[in-house]
Amino acid sequence: MSESKEENRLDAFRKQRAEMNEKILDLDHLGIKRFFNLDTNTYKDGALPMQTKELLGLVASTVLRCNDCIDYHLEQCAESGFSKDEIIDALNVALVVGGSIVIPHLRHAVATLELLEKENTLKSN
Amino acid sequence: MSESKEENRLDAFRKQRAEMNEKILDLDHLGIKRFFNLDTNTYKDGALPMQTKELLGLVASTVLRCNDCIDYHLEQCAESGFSKDEIIDALNVALVVGGSIVIPHLRHAVATLELLEKENTLKSN
Amino acid sequence: MSESKEENRLDAFRKQRAEMNEKILDLDHLGIKRFFNLDTNTYKDGALPMQTKELLGLVASTVLRCNDCIDYHLEQCAESGFSKDEIIDALNVALVVGGSIVIPHLRHAVATLELLEKENTLKSN
Amino acid sequence: MSESKEENRLDAFRKQRAEMNEKILDLDHLGIKRFFNLDTNTYKDGALPMQTKELLGLVASTVLRCNDCIDYHLEQCAESGFSKDEIIDALNVALVVGGSIVIPHLRHAVATLELLEKENTLKSN
Amino acid sequence: MSESKEENRLDAFRKQRAEMNEKILDLDHLGIKRFFNLDTNTYKDGALPMQTKELLGLVASTVLRCNDCIDYHLEQCAESGFSKDEIIDALNVALVVGGSIVIPHLRHAVATLELLEKENTLKSN
Amino acid sequence: MSESKEENRLDAFRKQRAEMNEKILDLDHLGIKRFFNLDTNTYKDGALPMQTKELLGLVASTVLRCNDCIDYHLEQCAESGFSKDEIIDALNVALVVGGSIVIPHLRHAVATLELLEKENTLKSN
Repeated sequence: MSESKEENRLDAFRKQRAEMNEKILDLDHLGIKRFFNLDTNTYKDGALPMQTKELLGLVASTVLRCNDCIDYHLEQCAESGFSKDEIIDALNVALVVGGSIVIPHLRHAVATLELLEKENTLKSN
Repeated sequence: MSESKEENRLDAFRKQRAEMNEKILDLDHLGIKRFFNLDTNTYKDGALPMQTKELLGLVASTVLRCNDCIDYHLEQCAESGFSKDEIIDALNVALVVGGSIVIPHLRHAVATLELLEKENTLKSN
Repeated sequence: MSESKEENRLDAFRKQRAEMNEKILDLDHLGIKRFFNLDTNTYKDGALPMQTKELLGLVASTVLRCNDCIDYHLEQCAESGFSKDEIIDALNVALVVGGSIVIPHLRHAVATLELLEKENTLKSN
Repeated sequence: MSESKEENRLDAFRKQRAEMNEKILDLDHLGIKRFFNLDTNTYKDGALPMQTKELLGLVASTVLRCNDCIDYHLEQCAESGFSKDEIIDALNVALVVGGSIVIPHLRHAVATLELLEKENTLKSN
Repeated sequence: MSESKEENRLDAFRKQRAEMNEKILDLDHLGIKRFFNLDTNTYKDGALPMQTKELLGLVASTVLRCNDCIDYHLEQCAESGFSKDEIIDALNVALVVGGSIVIPHLRHAVATLELLEKENTLKSN
Repeated sequence: MSESKEENRLDAFRKQRAEMNEKILDLDHLGIKRFFNLDTNTYKDGALPMQTKELLGLVASTVLRCNDCIDYHLEQCAESGFSKDEIIDALNVALVVGGSIVIPHLRHAVATLELLEKENTLKSN
């Protein structure tokens, strides 16, 4: 894929995610709204700090093999201050637990990390 | 289940796990031996400390719904110094990511935590 | 397994489920308590009646291959008035969607249905 | 994604699905042909009506996180007369059972429902 | 577990499996009966010999982490003439594809292979 | 999809896979490099020949529903000399074990087989 197209990929995801989440909340289903609220609160500081929980979310998303979830948590992990090396070390745990079936998602994650580096969302090691 | 039977459950798992792992290594299959070695090294200090990686292993095991893996990582998390509240907060991330299908494994995990408390493997909060 | 032991199986599950759920709520983790509350409310009458949603919960539990979840929803389905034939027809959908890997859970479900019939929880067709 | 492109998405899926299913049947593998036949018959009126079984198929597809299967069953559910509110209530069961990992598929499903509304395949509530 | 109890484990599974399969067929649900028939025919000689297909069934069961399915296909693989080394080499493929989450099922499989050796169902290498 | 676009699909995958695998190895994470090495060695001749293990990898990838993994193993299976009929027979095992949720991946696999036939990578039956 060409570079500019790759950059579009992450922005397109953010836009589509925001638009569709809004449409979902507009459905006005009480259970769904509560679930979204619960999901947001899950990653706030608690017994564990927010940062650690974002890393847990990343690994859970990777072993369950969901690219959209991986992209979301990668961005949160980068913004919360994890270095590239720390994120890669977390992805390695997911690879070993989840096996080679995880590799296509590792490729996706590493491509996303590159985009986050270009944006300066991900700090250099 | 009676209390003594429950205490046997964790000890029985440790014994069966150790015995079977030894038998697996005795099969002398190079690929399997390398995988086991890789698995052990995954949780050693690296860009992330061992402790964080054990917590990642716990959450990965919980969303993938494997009780034996949950018990193993719970013990490692407790031994590495995580408090009960921190472990519960990590399990909550797994619950929200993985959904209500995770609840039976949360019940299992909470029962194991009780056993680890009785043994003093898990520190009080 | 002997008949009396099988009858114990369902009662033991109900008891263990109730006890452990109470212990989980006693952990006093706000996120977990909210999730349990949300889960309970999911199956109440809404745009769809409670009964239909219990059947949806049964099929979701079966394709995700969780015996405890299957047992719980089988009981709810039986109590809400579904006949054995209707429940079996729902399990067939799960079998076809989920494949032969579901068969051991179908065996479990059919054994549970027998126990529910003996208790008169499941109405005759 | 632009609106016209989105409308193409559902039509493109229908066309590709029909073409590839034909090619699969042309392979003339007896087991595969029987499986496809069995799959079709699964959703016909039985102890449960076709309509209920399509909803079961939708929820099974959602917790197993397969967008193509979700689109197919959404269309069947809409055509069989379920309202948007009923379908959303079923998707909420899938969300709670399957957890936040299901959210990207919920976004996909809600986008598909919009397309089905525009086509008048989905009846207004 | 004591040795005699372990031997009971495989026999108990065979007995329970046969009894429950009979009960399932006695339900007289046409779709389920056809699925069971299709499942049996899948492993008969075709473009691939039965023996190869049993090995495929074993690896599929292992990455999907179903102990009952693993036990069934291990027995079929052993009876069809695969040596222990060949079966272990197939399980290694499953381990690498499926990751460390497969290890508890590898432990189960190796324990079952031991029982099959004692019975002389599994030929020595 | 137009024919030329479909041919691009397989080539684009090969190119993206090679590029990203190189970037992953350039990360210089010892655990990840060892995993990739282990993965490569898994499919070499051992107690089972390479060819059989590629077929096992294909079926494992199919029941775990990973299109990239399916494409990779389809190519390896074709290059190692399996005929189209043999590969289809293996995919049927995956379909029956994994259920109708596998069908979209069967459609993908059959489209890939067509591309491999056009390239003469797949031998005629």
